[in-house]
This record gives sequence, C-alpha cells and structure tokens, in this order.
Amino acid sequence: MPRLILVRHGQSQWNLENRFTGWWDVDLTEKGEEEARAAGRLLAEKGLLPTVAFTSLQTRAIKTLHFALEAAGLLWIPETKDWRLNERHYGGLTGLNKAETAALHGDEQVKIWRRSFDTPPPVLEYGSAFDLSTDPRYAGIAVPQTESLKDTIARVLPYYEGSIVPHLRAGATVLVSAHGNSLRALVKHLSGISDAEITGLEIPTGQPIVYDLADDLAVLDRYYLSER
Amino acid sequence: MPRLILVRHGQSQWNLENRFTGWWDVDLTEKGEEEARAAGRLLAEKGLLPTVAFTSLQTRAIKTLHFALEAAGLLWIPETKDWRLNERHYGGLTGLNKAETAALHGDEQVKIWRRSFDTPPPVLEYGSAFDLSTDPRYAGIAVPQTESLKDTIARVLPYYEGSIVPHLRAGATVLVSAHGNSLRALVKHLSGISDAEITGLEIPTGQPIVYDLADDLAVLDRYYLSER
Repeated sequence: MPRLILVRHGQSQWNLENRFTGWWDVDLTEKGEEEARAAGRLLAEKGLLPTVAFTSLQTRAIKTLHFALEAAGLLWIPETKDWRLNERHYGGLTGLNKAETAALHGDEQVKIWRRSFDTPPPVLEYGSAFDLSTDPRYAGIAVPQTESLKDTIARVLPYYEGSIVPHLRAGATVLVSAHGNSLRALVKHLSGISDAEITGLEIPTGQPIVYDLADDLAVLDRYYLSER
Repeated sequence: MPRLILVRHGQSQWNLENRFTGWWDVDLTEKGEEEARAAGRLLAEKGLLPTVAFTSLQTRAIKTLHFALEAAGLLWIPETKDWRLNERHYGGLTGLNKAETAALHGDEQVKIWRRSFDTPPPVLEYGSAFDLSTDPRYAGIAVPQTESLKDTIARVLPYYEGSIVPHLRAGATVLVSAHGNSLRALVKHLSGISDAEITGLEIPTGQPIVYDLADDLAVLDRYYLSER
C-alpha cells in the first residue's frame, strides 16, 4: 500500500522567539531535535518504515529528517532535497517577531497576511538583511520576494506530482520532512480542504501525519501516527 | 575545475575497540563526530565547497557526511547513498578484534588477509551473527560473504565511473564520505598505485584528500587539505 508520511520540522530558534522565518535558515532548538528523534522512534515502534525521503533546502527540515531517520534506523534510505518544499517566503516580514510586526503594520493587517490565502506580505527588498537571492543554495532558482499560501501551493504541488507521486505509484512509503505551509499545500490537496479553511489549519511540529493510499492514490485513511 | 574530495569516516566504536567491522553498521564515537565536524570546518575555511556528495549505506559514513556538511554550511547539497561505496566486507572476521583473530587464525594468516590484494578472509556464513544478507537495507543486492580489496575495487570503480564521473565532467566539486578500502579503490585508480602498494596505504580518518582535475579528469594535483 502506498503511504505518504508528513512531518513538520521540530521547534526552531525562531519558532521559539515567535519570529517570521520563511526562507531564512534557522536551526532547530534542542527541543526541536528531540521532537525529530521522537518522530523517528514512533515510526519504528509502529513499524511504519519509510523507503524514500524528501525534504526542503532548509537546515531545520533536513536535520529533522536526519534525526528522525537515525532514530528509526533508516539513515540509509534515499533522500532528495528540493527548494519547492521550502517554507512559504514571508517577504518583508522575515525576521520580525509578532509584536514588532503588529507595531509596524497593525494587528488587522498582520492577521490578513497570516490568514489570507492569496495576499502576500510586502516584498523583501533585494539586498536587505534577509535577502537570499544571491545565496549559492538557490543558484539558478528565481528566489521569491514574498509568497502567499497560494503561491506556495503553486510550487509545492507540481513538485509533488512530478517527483513524489511516481514513488507512491510504485508502492513506496514516502516521508516528507518540511514546513508548516509546504505541508499545508499537500494536506489541502490530499484532504480536499477549501482555500478558506486551509489557512486556519495548524500542522503540529514533529507529529507524523500518515496518508494510506490506494494504488490510484485515492486517500483511504488519514491519521496522526501518535493516535494509532 | 573539477575536484574530488575524499573523506574517510571519523573514528567508529569498533575502530576504537580494534575490531574488524566491514559491512557491520557501527556508529561514530564522539571523537569520530568531532573529526567529521573538523573536516567540514576545514572545507569552509579553505573555501573548498562541495556541490554534490556521495556516501555509502553505512551510518558512520553517512553521519560523517552530515556532520561535515553541517559544519561547512552545506547540509543542503544533493547527496546520494550507495552500497558500492561500503567498506570492504571482512567476511568471517567481522566482529573479531585483532587479538581474537590472531588467536584463532595465527598472526601470519591475519597479516595475509589484511595485506593481500586478492585473498579474501573466510566467508561469513549466512545466518551467523553479523550476516546482513536479509537486512532490508540491502534488499535486491547480492550481499557478499567476504571480499578481498580487489573485490572491493571491482564494485567501487564502476560506480565511480557511472555515477560520480558525470558530475566531475560537468565541473562539480564532489565530496565522497566513505571507508578505508572503498577510498583505497579510488586513490589507487586516480594516483595509479600498484596492487602491491595499495594494501599498505593508510587513509587517515576525517582528513579531506583533494584531487584537482583537468577537464578530461587527468589528475593535476593531489593533497591533504590540512596541508594547504
């Protein structure tokens, strides 16, 4: 049976500081590392062993994958890293904490950016502190200056269809270690969640979400692995 | 300029205990982890930044790669794991320490197995303690029961030619994190070392060995990065 397992990276330093992170490359906290290991132990305990893994180009998701795979005894499975699984780019909000953002832009505006499906935050200017457009990691990639959730979905889903679905069709158990919004894109697609509802869906860190799939990839069941 | 950087994994628990390891999956010691991080810091300091990485299916080499890449700020580069970069399979010697082996087989015989180019150790029986032939990691692979260095070279070089050389021809800086004998195979090939001499060549742990290559992959220079 094809299976897709989604894991949101463990707590990062900026999760802890309540700052908008987006594409900025923030490391895991110790708690985040432990969340990742616990996810791997849970996979092993439940006998749900991924055969292939995907992650973003961001350290917090890559390390979450590695800690989880190591804890599951599966550090040897193939892994592919791709920018299209990156977190939503938070544009000019990158680096600001929630209080700073509210002071600058007002609570109402912040709520719109956080909860709107298709309104992106203000752009991040090229050359500003958190600009990654010249980072070698993104060479050859048109680094966005900001993204709405809709924009994020528009890059995640084609990658899913082109690079992950072929493994699922071959019967693989696929582990994706990624971010709140890149995983929202997949959950929206697989669970058929509306544009309005998806922005309110919180994906917990370090909690494997499992989709059991039919051979034609119809969803047979969806559950948090910790609840089985 | 194409470059090939070879790193032998840091100290493992069985390196420390002086036991034949081969394909058995032994973890790094804390010293081994630190050796790996130091290798990564050296790559960053010298500005020798790999663009693509290869490793074996063995935890000690995979973790060496990850610690090194993280220390170099390069955890995001593509990585490929393949059994053909595994350590030489030590057959029936697997798990024995040097003293046990000498007591069982005699000093002279042990020297032959360690230093012969083409004499493999006795086979590891299927079903015995260190047999990996039914490990899911090696599904679809004819796990050897023992290997000489010649046997090891016979799987490493076709993999190098087929999977690593295309990256070098495209101008990549390739990092290979692997094992004493799988790296001997590459060093023998690149440096033109004789069958008789290669068995005596010690490859130090955690020390990046760099091959600067011409576009046709002729060797322009070979050096320990720590000496530049």
